[in-house]
Amino acid sequence: MSLIDTVISNKSLGILLVEELDLIGDVFKKHLHSQDDDVNDLCMHIERYRGKMLRPTLVILSSLATMGSDSREALDDRHRVLAAVVEMIHMATLVHDDILDESDVRRGGATVNSLHGNDVAVMLGDYLISKSFHLCSTLGDPSINLALGEVTNTLCEGEVIQLQNKNDLDMKQDVYLDIVGRKTGSLIGACCYLGAVLGGGDDEHCESLRLFGEEMGIAFQITDDVLDLMGKTEITGKSVGRDLDLGKLTLPLIKLRDGLDESGRREFNRIVGSRDKSDLIELLNSSNALNETMKTAREMVVKAQSRLDVLPAGPARELLLELSKSVLTRHS
Amino acid sequence: MSLIDTVISNKSLGILLVEELDLIGDVFKKHLHSQDDDVNDLCMHIERYRGKMLRPTLVILSSLATMGSDSREALDDRHRVLAAVVEMIHMATLVHDDILDESDVRRGGATVNSLHGNDVAVMLGDYLISKSFHLCSTLGDPSINLALGEVTNTLCEGEVIQLQNKNDLDMKQDVYLDIVGRKTGSLIGACCYLGAVLGGGDDEHCESLRLFGEEMGIAFQITDDVLDLMGKTEITGKSVGRDLDLGKLTLPLIKLRDGLDESGRREFNRIVGSRDKSDLIELLNSSNALNETMKTAREMVVKAQSRLDVLPAGPARELLLELSKSVLTRHS
Repeated sequence: MSLIDTVISNKSLGILLVEELDLIGDVFKKHLHSQDDDVNDLCMHIERYRGKMLRPTLVILSSLATMGSDSREALDDRHRVLAAVVEMIHMATLVHDDILDESDVRRGGATVNSLHGNDVAVMLGDYLISKSFHLCSTLGDPSINLALGEVTNTLCEGEVIQLQNKNDLDMKQDVYLDIVGRKTGSLIGACCYLGAVLGGGDDEHCESLRLFGEEMGIAFQITDDVLDLMGKTEITGKSVGRDLDLGKLTLPLIKLRDGLDESGRREFNRIVGSRDKSDLIELLNSSNALNETMKTAREMVVKAQSRLDVLPAGPARELLLELSKSVLTRHS
Repeated sequence: MSLIDTVISNKSLGILLVEELDLIGDVFKKHLHSQDDDVNDLCMHIERYRGKMLRPTLVILSSLATMGSDSREALDDRHRVLAAVVEMIHMATLVHDDILDESDVRRGGATVNSLHGNDVAVMLGDYLISKSFHLCSTLGDPSINLALGEVTNTLCEGEVIQLQNKNDLDMKQDVYLDIVGRKTGSLIGACCYLGAVLGGGDDEHCESLRLFGEEMGIAFQITDDVLDLMGKTEITGKSVGRDLDLGKLTLPLIKLRDGLDESGRREFNRIVGSRDKSDLIELLNSSNALNETMKTAREMVVKAQSRLDVLPAGPARELLLELSKSVLTRHS
């Protein structure tokens, strides 16, 4: 079941969420609007990156779950602003990631760097970061600004650690998990945490939701890394094996490598070194690495779900549980 | 007289400023420090970009001038934090500008992009932006965050407008002044404005100082553009004629072009199109364009200085006046 199917599976809450995402989209567009037509064209182009709106959804659901509510009255403009802020930050990371990865395609469309050059993509990413901090500042709550700054610091550090470990065929699993925790887990964790803060949650609720988000985010990224290898371009909207091309060792390859004997390891080094995708996929299929990888993702989701026990029971908490499960069965 | 000579010309205030810049440097380094050694190495490398510390100096002086004080007791940690914040933003723009401009050299040293590639430079700039917003949030004053977000929005828009006008030989003087106002004037204006806010200035003081900074910043950039053409690499630390190479039409060339007849204009188009520096400098020297350019810069400084009339007389206001004058005689 896809993320969106999961959301809609709960009818009344599903309708509320769809309407909220619409309002959040309006805030997003309104705040990005510039007097400059070229800037607006670029922002329109990257709207297609918005896709699943996972992060805004988590802001809203975490807030509702903290309050034990599924009512529209529990939400206000601060929720919509914060949700737009985190989505802008996410988009900024996508635009700058595409420069780092020299990617031509995202969600089946051309990337900004491939269409307009690195210079325009650097600027557009900066514009999105700037706009997100500015929009966040309109909330008038320094603690939210501070939390957001901590997350973007962590995101950047994750990116730097990943750059350092490029082409390192010996990279350990815990380094991989650290990178993924910083690059994907931290922002998703912050969405849940800040949603809970807006919902007036106590420290235990807020911290539990942060951990829920972080762990769910890591599981999300692990399945993303599996899709990078095994997914179909027409569904994922990305070319297969990009991580391999970029010298990024992801969990399936780490699991594969760690299960090999000495001669197998030499073969692994040759295949990864030469970026030979078909040989790699053959080797993967003859191993248990993909099963073990998905087992790690499943364990991460179970851990994440246990974090929700402290919250009051209700439809929003149920939907968070469902969402975390849907991470394991995603296809794009 | 250089900027630093000007500062030291007032003895007691000069000593205070030198000591404050030292404290600001400590805040800067402490907040940029990461657990990651590679990040720290990169931050050490770009410390050499800090150079003149014009922006932190203006934060401190504007605050003192607003209070009509030249006493250390008038300053506190908020001043040092804010001064470090604006310097970080300035450094982030330098790191990303060097990617856009494909520059190899800055202040006589190699740029981050030339040493480590665009990917590392994109990340380092993002890290500096993130750290600056985070540090700013520690002040706990949403209005300062908001003002900073407005400035970074403006900086990005200036960059985009500049990219759009690349290689446009017909670019008008007011478009040039708009770009320069956004790219250089806005941040320098914000330094003066926010310094005044910290000094408890009323609206008139704060807004006058903003205009002072913006206009001084524009004059600063105009002389920078003259230096780009006429300066010596061993003094400026940059190669001559970079703007021409990058297809950026600056004020000396706009003045030159606007003074030419039809056949002169054809020659101008040929020279600029072929990036022929020696022919261009010959054409400039045979014209009155450099004089006219410096006249515009001088007029801008006079306008800036008049903004200070509303402030109480005192050594800090005097030094602001001197600083704005020194912009016209800078060599690097």
